[in-house]
Amino acid sequence: MVGIIGAGQLARMTAQAAISLAVDTKVLAVLPTDPACVAATAVEIGDPNDPAALQRFVAGCDVVTFDHERVDPTLLARIETEGVRVRPSAAVLHFSDKAHQRVELAAHGFPVPPFDVVTTASEVVAFAAAHDWPVVAKTAVGGYDGRGVFVLENRDQAVATIGGLAGRRVVVEPMLDISAEIAVLVARRPSGDSAVYPMVETIQHDGICLETIAPATIDPDLRTQARNIAESIAETIGSVGILAVEFFITPDGVIVNELAPRPHNSGHWTIEGAITSQFENHVRGILDWPLGDTSLAAPAVAMANILGGAPSARPDDLPGALSVSGAHVHLYAKPTRPGRKLGHITATGPDQTVALHRARTALAAFTGTPMSKGTLHDH
Amino acid sequence: MVGIIGAGQLARMTAQAAISLAVDTKVLAVLPTDPACVAATAVEIGDPNDPAALQRFVAGCDVVTFDHERVDPTLLARIETEGVRVRPSAAVLHFSDKAHQRVELAAHGFPVPPFDVVTTASEVVAFAAAHDWPVVAKTAVGGYDGRGVFVLENRDQAVATIGGLAGRRVVVEPMLDISAEIAVLVARRPSGDSAVYPMVETIQHDGICLETIAPATIDPDLRTQARNIAESIAETIGSVGILAVEFFITPDGVIVNELAPRPHNSGHWTIEGAITSQFENHVRGILDWPLGDTSLAAPAVAMANILGGAPSARPDDLPGALSVSGAHVHLYAKPTRPGRKLGHITATGPDQTVALHRARTALAAFTGTPMSKGTLHDH
Repeated sequence: MVGIIGAGQLARMTAQAAISLAVDTKVLAVLPTDPACVAATAVEIGDPNDPAALQRFVAGCDVVTFDHERVDPTLLARIETEGVRVRPSAAVLHFSDKAHQRVELAAHGFPVPPFDVVTTASEVVAFAAAHDWPVVAKTAVGGYDGRGVFVLENRDQAVATIGGLAGRRVVVEPMLDISAEIAVLVARRPSGDSAVYPMVETIQHDGICLETIAPATIDPDLRTQARNIAESIAETIGSVGILAVEFFITPDGVIVNELAPRPHNSGHWTIEGAITSQFENHVRGILDWPLGDTSLAAPAVAMANILGGAPSARPDDLPGALSVSGAHVHLYAKPTRPGRKLGHITATGPDQTVALHRARTALAAFTGTPMSKGTLHDH
Repeated sequence: MVGIIGAGQLARMTAQAAISLAVDTKVLAVLPTDPACVAATAVEIGDPNDPAALQRFVAGCDVVTFDHERVDPTLLARIETEGVRVRPSAAVLHFSDKAHQRVELAAHGFPVPPFDVVTTASEVVAFAAAHDWPVVAKTAVGGYDGRGVFVLENRDQAVATIGGLAGRRVVVEPMLDISAEIAVLVARRPSGDSAVYPMVETIQHDGICLETIAPATIDPDLRTQARNIAESIAETIGSVGILAVEFFITPDGVIVNELAPRPHNSGHWTIEGAITSQFENHVRGILDWPLGDTSLAAPAVAMANILGGAPSARPDDLPGALSVSGAHVHLYAKPTRPGRKLGHITATGPDQTVALHRARTALAAFTGTPMSKGTLHDH
């Protein structure tokens, strides 16, 4: 039995993949209607930060893994010492703390932006004195999909924003000159074997991933650099299962933006686009089974997220999207909310442009909104 | 809600595919441990031939479909007249009766072997007088995976076998000169659109499908013939969802062997090997949604069934099978029994030989038995 803490779309797609291997899954959900509940073998309702609920949940699990990082690392470390197999480990999960992540990556010599970890506005001002305004501030924990990220233009904004965070730790960095964002997924097993997925370019808007395109069309030298860095980080921190490493491409080369120690939105394309999906490889990795082939199953693969529309939006048109040849629709069965990730659409093609056009056409048919006009980043 | 009568591996893989489209599934199972129960949204335990259980099950289903054909057609026809959407229809499901199938296909001019429908040994003897011994006898209902199929060499065997069938209807046909067996899957929706999968060659042993290879390497004229016949049968009988049409290739051309009005073992390769799997297209078809692209996702795709071994066989080695690069393992979580279909392994490749070698290598690793020595049929 694989226990998954959390029952969102990542747990849903992991449980769906586990069915093929006859691996039973149990999810720790907030509500019985959470996305993963229909796909999992068993469901428990509870708060992962309630020690008693967590203890109950992990009992009988051969291995425990995660759909999200909102779990107290101390609590996890404790159940680990009690002999529960937590994969990735509590120590790896700690890397979802952006401050810890930056400090550790810098200490190991991985390329990160200039940064500081601060709790007061005056520290932000001091950072700006050295690096200039604007300053990008990210809460160390609790942020996702653009939440908890602030662009501070001046001292007043720093005072207002940091003051509002009531002493929470914040990572500050300069506004970088970013020409593209890419992500590398590494699957790894405890015995040390790892497998790296082809790099994807991610297209973001307001901090939310809108689309991914595989393979990323970036300079081969940068590609090799990023791949080596991602693999080296996975080994250095001892990741198990999937580790997503997001990079910025800047005039100074590739810079690590962020890690996510779990299946990741930037890897949803692998369900149809890679020989083995990130979800199956996460299951294989945490069970210490041989990892599957991570190569592309098509020349190019594009993924477009389905985001919740305005309350006035017309009902979604699933048959409309399915009428687009080659479009694969994945719905998470989540209540809608503007901007919320409700599903994704993947399409393969002979090249990136065709694949992206197919995915966007299906998305436009699904939501009834005009097709995205963003263009493929080009190097 | 899609209701699936039966909860075997076909229902399991259909429910697994339905998760992506956020389509809820409910299965009518014999036991809560049946293969599909972990993948379905809801489970009811009951006998589909118990009118009360069937009535309870279909309540609240938008559409009802099948994992197997062991349902009383009269009962189905009755719930249909009560307004339940049964897809494929009771009339189509009736084609799983081999006698009905042969009579109807012959009446519509489709190529079938010489045949008769008999209940007595003396009728078999009369058939042999016209067509010579041996005679192949197949029970009209209740046979699968080689059960209910008998090769009768002479009058004594006919008397013994037919006598033992206590008046059940039997289809008799001559022993044909079969150079290969192929299968064509047609997906169809009520509005009439259909999509045909690339033809596969099936490798059988003792009436059990051991392997499939796509695309089948047969003469293009025969391929076109078989494809047209399959599509025409689907339209003639009004199939909805997947219809599998199995053909014999004989010196007289292609001959229809058998129909199966549901996802079929000869289409398991489509999960990884086609752009849209037979399971997703079955769901789309019965919901009258646009059908997905049925083309190959790789140059060649091979599937090998995992059959239960002897009681003395060593435990299955899933990690061993997963160590074969590109092997996709699907386990059905069924109790083992010699010869029982417990799962399947799919592998893609640059050509049929490589794909088949990969699938066989993984199967041999899984079961610990020597690799199959059968060779690819070659035209």
